[in-house]
Order: sequence, then structure tokens, then C-alpha cells
Amino acid sequence: MSANAQPGVNHDIRDPALAEAGRRRVDWAHLSMPVLQAVRKQFIKSQPLVGRRVGACLHVTAETANLAITLRDGGAEVVLCAANADSTDDEVAAVLVKDYGIATHAVRGADRETQRRHWDAVLETAPQVTLDDGCDLIGRLHTARQDRLSGVLGGTAEGLRGAAAEAVQYPVIAVDGSVTKRMFDNQLGTGQSTIDAILRATNLLLAGLTVVVAGYGPGGRGIAARARGLGANVLVTEVDPLRALEAAMDGFRVMSMTLAAEQADLVVTATGNKAVLAREHFEKLKNNAILCNAGHSSVEIDTEALERMASARREVRRHVEEYALRDGRRVYVLAAGRLINLATGEGHPASVMDVSFATQALAVEYLVKHYATLERRVHAAPAEIDRQVAKMKLESMGVRIDRLSLEQEKYLSDWPQGY
Amino acid sequence: MSANAQPGVNHDIRDPALAEAGRRRVDWAHLSMPVLQAVRKQFIKSQPLVGRRVGACLHVTAETANLAITLRDGGAEVVLCAANADSTDDEVAAVLVKDYGIATHAVRGADRETQRRHWDAVLETAPQVTLDDGCDLIGRLHTARQDRLSGVLGGTAEGLRGAAAEAVQYPVIAVDGSVTKRMFDNQLGTGQSTIDAILRATNLLLAGLTVVVAGYGPGGRGIAARARGLGANVLVTEVDPLRALEAAMDGFRVMSMTLAAEQADLVVTATGNKAVLAREHFEKLKNNAILCNAGHSSVEIDTEALERMASARREVRRHVEEYALRDGRRVYVLAAGRLINLATGEGHPASVMDVSFATQALAVEYLVKHYATLERRVHAAPAEIDRQVAKMKLESMGVRIDRLSLEQEKYLSDWPQGY
Amino acid sequence: MSANAQPGVNHDIRDPALAEAGRRRVDWAHLSMPVLQAVRKQFIKSQPLVGRRVGACLHVTAETANLAITLRDGGAEVVLCAANADSTDDEVAAVLVKDYGIATHAVRGADRETQRRHWDAVLETAPQVTLDDGCDLIGRLHTARQDRLSGVLGGTAEGLRGAAAEAVQYPVIAVDGSVTKRMFDNQLGTGQSTIDAILRATNLLLAGLTVVVAGYGPGGRGIAARARGLGANVLVTEVDPLRALEAAMDGFRVMSMTLAAEQADLVVTATGNKAVLAREHFEKLKNNAILCNAGHSSVEIDTEALERMASARREVRRHVEEYALRDGRRVYVLAAGRLINLATGEGHPASVMDVSFATQALAVEYLVKHYATLERRVHAAPAEIDRQVAKMKLESMGVRIDRLSLEQEKYLSDWPQGY
Amino acid sequence: MSANAQPGVNHDIRDPALAEAGRRRVDWAHLSMPVLQAVRKQFIKSQPLVGRRVGACLHVTAETANLAITLRDGGAEVVLCAANADSTDDEVAAVLVKDYGIATHAVRGADRETQRRHWDAVLETAPQVTLDDGCDLIGRLHTARQDRLSGVLGGTAEGLRGAAAEAVQYPVIAVDGSVTKRMFDNQLGTGQSTIDAILRATNLLLAGLTVVVAGYGPGGRGIAARARGLGANVLVTEVDPLRALEAAMDGFRVMSMTLAAEQADLVVTATGNKAVLAREHFEKLKNNAILCNAGHSSVEIDTEALERMASARREVRRHVEEYALRDGRRVYVLAAGRLINLATGEGHPASVMDVSFATQALAVEYLVKHYATLERRVHAAPAEIDRQVAKMKLESMGVRIDRLSLEQEKYLSDWPQGY
Repeated sequence: MSANAQPGVNHDIRDPALAEAGRRRVDWAHLSMPVLQAVRKQFIKSQPLVGRRVGACLHVTAETANLAITLRDGGAEVVLCAANADSTDDEVAAVLVKDYGIATHAVRGADRETQRRHWDAVLETAPQVTLDDGCDLIGRLHTARQDRLSGVLGGTAEGLRGAAAEAVQYPVIAVDGSVTKRMFDNQLGTGQSTIDAILRATNLLLAGLTVVVAGYGPGGRGIAARARGLGANVLVTEVDPLRALEAAMDGFRVMSMTLAAEQADLVVTATGNKAVLAREHFEKLKNNAILCNAGHSSVEIDTEALERMASARREVRRHVEEYALRDGRRVYVLAAGRLINLATGEGHPASVMDVSFATQALAVEYLVKHYATLERRVHAAPAEIDRQVAKMKLESMGVRIDRLSLEQEKYLSDWPQGY
Repeated sequence: MSANAQPGVNHDIRDPALAEAGRRRVDWAHLSMPVLQAVRKQFIKSQPLVGRRVGACLHVTAETANLAITLRDGGAEVVLCAANADSTDDEVAAVLVKDYGIATHAVRGADRETQRRHWDAVLETAPQVTLDDGCDLIGRLHTARQDRLSGVLGGTAEGLRGAAAEAVQYPVIAVDGSVTKRMFDNQLGTGQSTIDAILRATNLLLAGLTVVVAGYGPGGRGIAARARGLGANVLVTEVDPLRALEAAMDGFRVMSMTLAAEQADLVVTATGNKAVLAREHFEKLKNNAILCNAGHSSVEIDTEALERMASARREVRRHVEEYALRDGRRVYVLAAGRLINLATGEGHPASVMDVSFATQALAVEYLVKHYATLERRVHAAPAEIDRQVAKMKLESMGVRIDRLSLEQEKYLSDWPQGY
Repeated sequence: MSANAQPGVNHDIRDPALAEAGRRRVDWAHLSMPVLQAVRKQFIKSQPLVGRRVGACLHVTAETANLAITLRDGGAEVVLCAANADSTDDEVAAVLVKDYGIATHAVRGADRETQRRHWDAVLETAPQVTLDDGCDLIGRLHTARQDRLSGVLGGTAEGLRGAAAEAVQYPVIAVDGSVTKRMFDNQLGTGQSTIDAILRATNLLLAGLTVVVAGYGPGGRGIAARARGLGANVLVTEVDPLRALEAAMDGFRVMSMTLAAEQADLVVTATGNKAVLAREHFEKLKNNAILCNAGHSSVEIDTEALERMASARREVRRHVEEYALRDGRRVYVLAAGRLINLATGEGHPASVMDVSFATQALAVEYLVKHYATLERRVHAAPAEIDRQVAKMKLESMGVRIDRLSLEQEKYLSDWPQGY
Repeated sequence: MSANAQPGVNHDIRDPALAEAGRRRVDWAHLSMPVLQAVRKQFIKSQPLVGRRVGACLHVTAETANLAITLRDGGAEVVLCAANADSTDDEVAAVLVKDYGIATHAVRGADRETQRRHWDAVLETAPQVTLDDGCDLIGRLHTARQDRLSGVLGGTAEGLRGAAAEAVQYPVIAVDGSVTKRMFDNQLGTGQSTIDAILRATNLLLAGLTVVVAGYGPGGRGIAARARGLGANVLVTEVDPLRALEAAMDGFRVMSMTLAAEQADLVVTATGNKAVLAREHFEKLKNNAILCNAGHSSVEIDTEALERMASARREVRRHVEEYALRDGRRVYVLAAGRLINLATGEGHPASVMDVSFATQALAVEYLVKHYATLERRVHAAPAEIDRQVAKMKLESMGVRIDRLSLEQEKYLSDWPQGY
């Protein structure tokens, strides 16, 4: 624990003295998070989380700070650790400990061992609700720390799938299944922030470039749409025929990565899979091609294979590494293939996290209310939460929409007449 | 039955002699329906429908003719009637009877009584599978003709919802729930064909106009996207907060119809509801505003209310009716508020129906195979059919996509490592 | 002259009795021509053309009728013939003669000899101002009918270039050089009306198609933008490096026609040149490719060469001709390669012609005022007319814009300070 | 002169020892400047500037370094000072002096007095050709330093207009009149870099925001297109009716700033004028509105007026200043109203400057060849330079375009036949 620790708040952060610098950031994020603020106002009144312990493993950023504060203001005891050591904002961590008394265990650049220690620090508090961006807490609870499983009433997570999803021992709301999350976080947020991060890393002019987007899930769609919106000619690669078809009908060229790589000025991977760019594709790239990754994990570009093809490697600009290939071509990799919008940008805009985190806060409330009747499996976010978040977001934008009249409601549910 | 009837084929059509003129249209549609042709080739080999009676109530068009032929070539005995008397192509009906021996009961402009007779002619053949564009056959089977219910193994339908959906007595595949249908028919097809129909009716320049789209379901989204693609400034109205939010985040202005009506040069309704444009909105319209409907039924614009506000009414161009309001404004209604892409255009492009009808043909095959194990309720189209249609469509476009490697498949289903 | 001729009005039209049917069309166009109506109101007051004879060779359409009426209401004696026999609307011609007493010489489908006679009928009236859509009157005045040259004070024209432009013997305002004309007529009008005409001819779904646009002048840009706006993937071919570069930076792929032809589902020519699609390109086309022309003249597609490659040819749909090539491929040509928006559509929307014709009307006024001081050469449309038309158009749209303050005007003309 | 000066190279820079850090940046820019490299290769062969003294007043950036090196490699003696002290990259200045021996007089943050000294240091070398980004050297030569005027053969400049333009005493090529400059620098470059700079300053999500763009010149058009491409709903204000009309026909809403200000989430000025946002507009702004400027000079937002309306002011994030207005609203100004893409971004992408600087280099060659026959006034960039730059750019992109056949050339210049 750092020297001038906050009395009474268990924590492991860089330095509480950094709070000064982080305060403005938490406030600036607050400004762009009107939906979460609306939830917070409700929570302050209704106190739905009183007496509940919430353990959260999230990117420790200014936006997350606003979520943690909202949960706290709803009555919860909140303990926080980092979903990713690279994204931890030490100054924000300091604000949480110092100004808000929220137990935080997060240090930028912490090694894997320290991260595990931080997860365990959270689990030691016996959280009744877990929040995961990814599935770190859930993963640890179901593997190394099954001893802590029994006290958990429910949790939220993202990216739970396959065998892992089938094995969960408590009700988990998959917030990435919510409409608003998919719209804001996966599509709008990833779309803009990926392009933004590429521009910050390279200062490339996108107009006139051939940009290949690997993957046409919500993230890839957002990236493709924004790249086109900035004047690029966009190619899409996919493994799923429905998504491939959607890309084609959206006016994008669709082809295999082997063919796409030959034409690419810039490739952005957004598939959630590994080795999407591999040796067979590197062999086709044009001289000066630029590669980056917008997927969660850094395995999408097989940089090891690329390194084996290279005779030299150097950083030519911050976050831009040049691989001089033995055949004379040069290839550039951004941020070493790590998730680019976190590595070279600022992650999602606050207004994106606003919607995601409002959904999360309402999902925590929902779990606390309904855990007794929920099956122990992965659940979609309740439609009612989606609707409520959408309504609050529209209100924050000053948008009023129509309502069905009684007559219209009746019309919608009747058998058509005249048989 | 008409004078020079086709021997042995029961039918009620305008005139078999019209076949000559309809043949080219059936062929032209064929050209744009490569997916259905691929299904047909499969069917010719595997004969999945041998001995089955299929009753279909669809728009009798050149595209439907290709579906009916495909089902017939799969071994079925097909009987066809019209989902909408206004959309019946008498020449195509003649081709079906004369060239393909398909029993057809459809006459353009038939009155309601004749339509009922046509439905019953189909039901008299004791169909084992019903196809509905809408739910005319299903509706009649569940109300006036319950005597024919017991022999039905399954059906396909569109737009089944509410009490009607809950009451179905046999397994029904809701083809409008299929991904490809939603993508092609509801969004791409309605989007383009609605705009196309408006241009044919008016020859308006869309660039610079303020266009209001009521409803941001797939149809409304397609219309909004295409109107913007032609240079219009688009406003969206909605009753659903999620759809409203999506429209706003897509960059459209969203507001109540009362406000939108004040600014509209053109209003297009696409909600599936009634009285979306009603007196309160007519009162706000600018002089020379133009109104039309892209929804299934003609009740979206309350033309009766408009007529009560008008001192005179005249057709100023084919399909364009001018209402001279008592306050001096003039308002124009296209195609009397009927579904515009059928009324003034040619309905969906053949390549749209290609995807829908390939899905329908495969759904019929699926029902015949699986009816015994399917619950008696509305089912979504099986995901496998969607994938298969998407694959066939991509192939027809000459698009090749990537496949997951074994290693990638494994990666996708594992727990992330390191807990 | 037809039997029931209008007394006192010299004319050669199909039949004055057709006026009844044409009246609605002239009125409907009127509705979409607020700028021309604003000019007409001015003209009625100021009578700038009193005593002047105006000879006009234009497409005889409902929009042209409104121009002719405007000039007449400004005091001119107007005589009209057809710029293109295919575009003549016989019913509108009848309205002009019967309702407005405007001497009209135009019959749909007239042969070349009759057209020459119509030109001469106009020239016999010794027009002082000529209006040409193309340069038919000017061409004839400078070749076969130089006897009539001396009385002409000035004229307007489109497409005058090369040797022809250098040889003109009186001041000619090239209305196609006006900003509003380029924006509305060449880009917005051609863009929408070409796509509209293709849809009417084929009912193709553009989404997902590869569309090749030959030429990236204003027309080609408009077509490319609208095709993209409807979901197509657009390729551009060009001979001019600046235009080619502009297309590339707009996000379109740019390549030679030889390469583009291999990928095209649809090719649209818009170059103003001949043999843009020639044998070498036909040889590369995919099976079922569709070809059409949006340029003024029908020489852009070398249909003769295509015919030589074909073993059979038939009309498969109105305006759609199938060429069965000897190698088994089929290629479709729309409207025999004629200007598609006139051949299968309705030409430009009235609101496009509104701007063009308001410019023409003001150009006629300008010529009558200033002919004495204008050099005998081709002049650009005066900037003041462009501004005035733009202002009137904005007013008709209800758009108010800002004005420079005095301080701002001063700021714009000063040397920057501080040297 | 700094301590460890480069022997023999006159200069005033921060520190030659900074060269190390600047080298990578000059190289990275080089990579994105293929057109300028093509010019440089030509220059190295043809040595068109041998013995000529070139004085350049430009933003001292990595891209400018590449231009200076190109001119030097063409044989010129180059002396460089800064067009704007805020944009000077001290490390690049060091590279120029140390690696390339180019006399450079530029220090980031220099005061006005120092800047004047730097201009004079350039003028002391008696340059025969001047290069201005803006018109600093030209301005000083025509006011305080007319003694140096006589030796100047010609110059290039941007933004010369009004009285200043009329007073120039030597031939000046206005590079901002070149097609490529307008396309790349003013529209594509400003469009992307302004949006990029706003995102860096704020991390706002643009989707769903109402963005007001003041001015629809090339810069404003670029910004409006990019903001729309990122999902914003864009409003445009203008004083010029033609530009206003173009914006409206491009599908943007156009209105007075007084009305626009009421709806704006973000306002971007790009007019080149002063007080485009003034007290009357500040009074209408919504709470939390954000203001910034993309125009050359920082007078477009009247920040003094805003300050007078405010009770407090603080920086809430780097480059983001919050004005707490007396009526309770908060308004945010980015970069104190200075040119945002330089202040918070990195200015134009290198590939934009590539085109501009290739044009400048060729313009210098042109001046040196043709000065004797050029009038002493402002000239547009010769069309041939535009074509050459466009060709080289297309080549660098790997784009091949078609050429006119002889027959096609002939067709284009003939009178149409048949009169």
C-alpha cells in the first residue's frame, strides 16, 4: 500500500497524491455521461444496493469512476480492480480512493502476478455481485477461487461464450448482448475510437486509401462505416456468410484476406479471433502497408510470424513499428498489435461508456432484486433495461418521440379483419 | 373458368392467352434470381416435396412464378392464389397455368368476395403446407375454414403477431424473422423500391428536400438510408425508444410527427400501424407537402380525415392526388395511401425476392422434413437456412470468404488462459 | 399545319386537341418551378423583352413550356422547335399552341428532314435571341442559314466547344458554364434521373452491385454519388488525371475501362465522347452485364461493334435488349445506348429545370440589355445571374442565410496587420 | 545563434542538438510524400534552380523539411523562417540545419519581434523567389522592406486577396488556386484534420451530435462531409448564396447562425472572417455547447465577448476551456479559438502536404523559367502543374487511367454533324 494511503480504504494504487490531476478528468467524463447521472439520481433516492458488496473488474478510467460512484451512491460497497493493466489511469484510481473512498486495486503496467493479487483482493471482500469487462473475476471464481463462488448472487460480464459460458455457476447478465451496448460500445464507440486512434498513431489521410476491415461484427461495421465516412475505399473479410453478405449489400467489397492483403494500404482486424493476419497474408502485402488491431486481444495479428520474416525492426514514430522484411518490403504495425483504441487513443468516448455503464448499473440493480428467481446461466440484458436506457439517452439529447394511441395499440394486436 | 382453359389445370385467371406477354417477365426475373435457381437445381435432384400439396397465397408476380416453379420442380403439387388483388400480374398468372400447369386463382382487381373464393379454391385442395405473404390462408384456416386445419403439416407466413400468432394450430415459420429476409426484403428492397416508386409517381428531385420517414424498423431504415443517399435531409419519427435512438445515432433528426410535419416536403410512412398521419399532423403540413405510404396496409395515412379537411380533390398526375384544403394549402397524396412500391412501382427487385423466396422454398423443405417434431406455434426461420441462403447468394455474386482454421475454432471456444 | 389549328399561331404539332391531356403536366411542372415563377413575376412587372423575337430550340416538355410562357410574359414573341424529336411531348406542344398562343414546331418522332424544316420555321421569324439546348439553331445559323445571322443579337447554348465555339458570330452565353446549371442540371439532375431511369428500365437492386461510371465530370459524379447512395460499389474510369484523382479521393476505385469491364455488373457512360465502351471492353464483360449511356449522344457505347460480336439479339423487357454473344455470354443494353434519362425515364426533375431555365430566362434578359457591348464570342453566364438564381432558389426553400456585417466586409479586404 | 551552431549555416533555432529526435519525423513524413519525392528525383537530374536563392516562410514541420530539401536538391540556396511561431517544430528545425545545411530561422513560441527578425534574416539574403504560407514575406516586402523588392523574380503565396493582391510588385502564383491544393489541402486535409483535432481535444462521440459548420468553402465542405461521415447531424451557415445552396443540395440544413446556435452541440468556424461567433450567437447556445475554429486566424470566435459574458473560466482538459456564463450555462472553447488542427492536432497529414508542396516546388521551377514574361500580378497556378501533380499522385497510388484515342480526340473538337 502506498505511503499516504487513504485511512480506512483498502487499496493498492500508484499514489493517492495523483488525485489532483485526475479530478478534472472524472468531471469531464461526468459531463458526457448524462444517462449514468440520471441513474445515479434514481439510485440516490431509491438506494437499491444498500448493504450489497459489489466487486468490479473494469478498465480503471474516468468513465468507470463515474460508474463506481453511481453504485456507491446506490448504497453498495464497491471494490474495484483493473480489467487491463495497460488501461489503468493512476490518477483516476487516486481520485476514487481519496475523494470517494472506493477501495481500488489497480496500478498501470502491473504484471500478471500483481493483477492476480488485485483480483484476489476483490474476491477477499466476498462480493455478492461481480462486474467484469471481459470475464476476469468470473474466470478466476470458476477456476482458482471456487471457494468464493457460493456467496455470489449474480454478475455482469462481456464476451462470455463457449464452454466458459456453459459452466457459470451463478446468474450472469451478458451486457454485451444489450441493444444499447451493441449500438454504442461495439459499433459507434469502436468505430470512431479505432479510426481516431489510427489517426493519432499515424496522422494518415484516410481519403483515397484502401482499408481492409477484418470482421463485420458490430465493431467491424463501425470501423468500416467510419473509414468510408472519411473517404477510404473499404474491403471487408469475414468467415460468417451472413455477415459477409451484409457487408456486400452495404456496398463494401468482400473477399478472402489473401486477396484483400494484396490491395491494402491499411488493415484493421476486429474479429475476436487469433492469427487473422498471418504469414500467408504478410507475404501478399504491398510495400508500406500498415496493420493494426481493434479486437479485444492482441493475438489477431501474428506479430511473431512477422518478426520471423523481418531482418530489422524499429520504432519510426511513437506506437509505429517498422518491420523491414527480407524481401525488401516494409510493413508497419501499430501499437504492437494491441487493442488500438486503448493503446494509442483514449478508448471509447465518455458518451459511449455512459450508455454501457448505465446499463451495467441497472443490471446490478436487477440482479440484486431478482437473483433468487434467475437461473444460473448467462442471461441477455433484460429488454426493459434497454428500453429504459434508450429513453434516458433520448431525453438527455432533448429528443421527444411519439406514443402509440390506444387505438393504435389495439390495431397492432388484432387479427387482420375480413376472413 | 375462362374460355380457353388449360386442360386439367383448375384455375381462375384473366385469360390464358396473356401468357405470351408474361413469359419475358418470368424469364427476366429468373435472370436476377440465382439463389432460387440454385435451390431449384437441388430440388430437381433431391425431390424433397414429392407427393406434397402446397397452397400459396402470394403476390402473383414474375418472381412468385419462379418460386412456384421451384416448388413444383421439387415434386410438390402447387396451388396459388393472390395475397393482394392489386398486385396480380394477369399475364404471369397465364404463364403459370399455360406453361407450367400450376393451378392459379388470381385476377387483378378482384373484389373481396372473389378473393375469398380464391382462398377457398386453394383450401379445397387440402394443402399440407401453406405459404402466406401476410396471413390470409392462415387467417381463413383459423376462422371461417377450421374444417381444413387438421390436414396442414405446417406453413410459412409474414407479419403474424399478437393474438393471432398465439392462436396458430400448426407449426408456422415466420419468414420475416429470417436475417436474409429482414436484410433484403424489409430493408434493401423496401428502401430502394419505395424511393423508386416515389420518383416514378412524382419525378421529384430528392436532393435538398426534407423527407420525414415514419418508423425506423427495417423498412424505415432502408427508406431513410436511400433518401439520404439521394441527397435528402431526413427526419425520423418513432414510438420505440430503441429504434428512435438508433435513428438519432445514425445521424438523423428524430422528433414527434407533430413537429416533423411542419418541416416536411415529403412524408413516407413505414410503421405497420394506422393513422400515423392524422388530422393533427395534416394541420401542420407546409403548402405542397407530399404524403405516401410504404407500409403493408393502406391505413397509415388517414385519408378520410384529410378529405374532410379538403374543399376539392383532383388527380394532377397519375397516382398523385391533390387535396385543396379549406385554409388554402394544397397537399398531395400518392397512390391514395396504398403501399407505394406496389402501387406505382414494380414491387421489390427480383434479386430481393430471390433471397426471400429461396428462404421460403427451403422453409417448405424444412417443414416437410421436420413437421412431426415441431411445436404448433410460430417459429423463427432456422439459422441454418439463413446461412445456406447467404452462402448461395455470395456464390452467385462471385464472392469467396475465409474459413476458420481448426486452431481458430479452438481459440473461440476456450476459456481465456491465465486465471 | 394540323386541321383544327389555333387561329393566328403558326405551328406544326401533332394535334392541338391533345392540349387537354398536357395541361395537368404543365401545371405539375409549374409546382416544382418556384424560381422560374419568381422570374416570371419580375418579368410581368418589368417587361424586359418587349418587342423582341426569341427563337428556342429545346426539349419540348412541360418544363420548357413554363420557360416559354415566362419569356412570353416578359414581352417576347416566342417561337419554339425541338432539340430532340424523341423528347417532344405532343400534348405539351398542343398546350403551348392552344392555351398560350406560342408558335411551336415539334412532333414526336419527327425525321431529320422535318426537324430541319422546324429549325428553319424558327429562323424564318428572324429571331433576335436564340436559345439552344445543344447548338442546333446556332449550328444551322453558322452553316446552312448564314443569311439569318445578321439579325441575331445574342443567344444561349449548351455544349458549344472546340472549333464551333471559336467560330460564333454573335455573343453566346454558355449556360452550361453557370454554377447553378452545373450543380443542378449536370450533377444533381443527371445523377438522380440516370439512376431513376435505370431502375425503371430494369428494376435492378443496386445494393451489392459493382457499378462502373465512365467519366467523372459533373454528370458522372452525380451518377457515382447516387449509385453509392443506393448501396452499389462504384468504379470510375477517366481520361483526365485531375478528375480521376478527385474520384479516387472521393473513395471510388479508379482504373482503366479494360480492367473495370471485368468486374462490372452495370456500366454507365457519361463522358460526352464516342466508343467509350468498345469491342476491347465488351470482350472483358462478365456474363449478364448491363450497359447504358447517360451522355448526350448515343455514340458512347459502340453498339455496332457489339452487334458484330452477337449471334442473336432480342428485347427481353421494354428498353432492355439482350445480345447473345458468340462465346455464350449475354450482355444487356438499355435504350439502345441512347441518353437513358430521356429514353426510359422522364428526363430531369422539374426542380432541376427550374434552376436551368430561370438562368436561361435571366440570360435572355441580360443579352437584350447588354448585347451592344458584348464581344461576339462564347461568354460564361454572368456571376450575378448565378447569385440571383441561387438566392431565389434558397428563398423558395425557405432558407435564410447570414449577411456580412460592415466590419466583416472590411476585414476581408484588408492587408493582414503587423508587418 | 545557438551555442553548438552548424558551421557555415546561418540560423536561429532552439538547439541543433534536437536533430536526433526530429529525424524520424522527417523520415516518416517522407514516406507519405511520394509526389514530392518524384519531383525531387526530377530536380536532382534537371537542376532547375541552380544558383537561385529561395526565401521561404512556411510552417516549420517535417513536411516542410521535405520541401526545403527538394528545393535544395534542385540547386537552390534555401533560407527558411516560420509562418507561425506556434507551429514550429524545433526538432525539425534542428534537422534542417544540422543534416541538410539549410539556413533556418524559427523558434517555437517566438514573439512577434523575433518573428520580424526572422523574416528580415530571410530578406537579407536577397531571395529571388519567395514562398509564403499566408503572405508574411510578401507583406513585409511590400511594406517595411520595399528596399528588397527589386531583386525578387517571383513568389508563391496563399490567401492573397483584396487590396493586397492588387498591389503586388512581382509575379505571384497563388497556390491556393490550384485544383489539387483546393482538393487536398483545403478540403480533404482540413476536413479530416479538423475532426481529428476535435477528437483529440475532447474525445467526443460525434454520432448523434448536432454539428454546425460555419462556412461552406472547401474547408467547410470537408469538415461537414467528415462530421457527417462520423454520424453527426450537420448544419451549415453561409453568407454566399451559391455556397449555401450547394450545402442545401448536399443534404445539409442551412440557416442563419442565430438559429443554428440554438441547436448546436458543437460549432466549427471555417470562414476566414472575424466574429462569426459573436455575442448574439453566444446568447443562443445550449448548455455545454463546444466551440472551435478551423479557419486560418483566431478571430472567428469573438472570445473577448464571451469572456465578458462569463463569471468564471477554467481549463477542464488540455485545450478545453470552460466559460461559466452569468446565466448559468457553460460553454467550452477549444484551443482558445486558434486554428484547431494545428493547435490540438498535427496539422495536415503528410500526404496532403505532399500534393501542396509538389505544386509549390513545380511553381518555383515555373517562376524561375518564366518570370521574364509573367505580369506583375497574382497568377493562378498553371493548369499544367495541376495535371502533372495529379498524374504523379495517381501513379503513386498505383492507379492507371484511360487515354483518349485519336478518333476520340477528333470527335471532341468537331462541330456536331448534320446541319
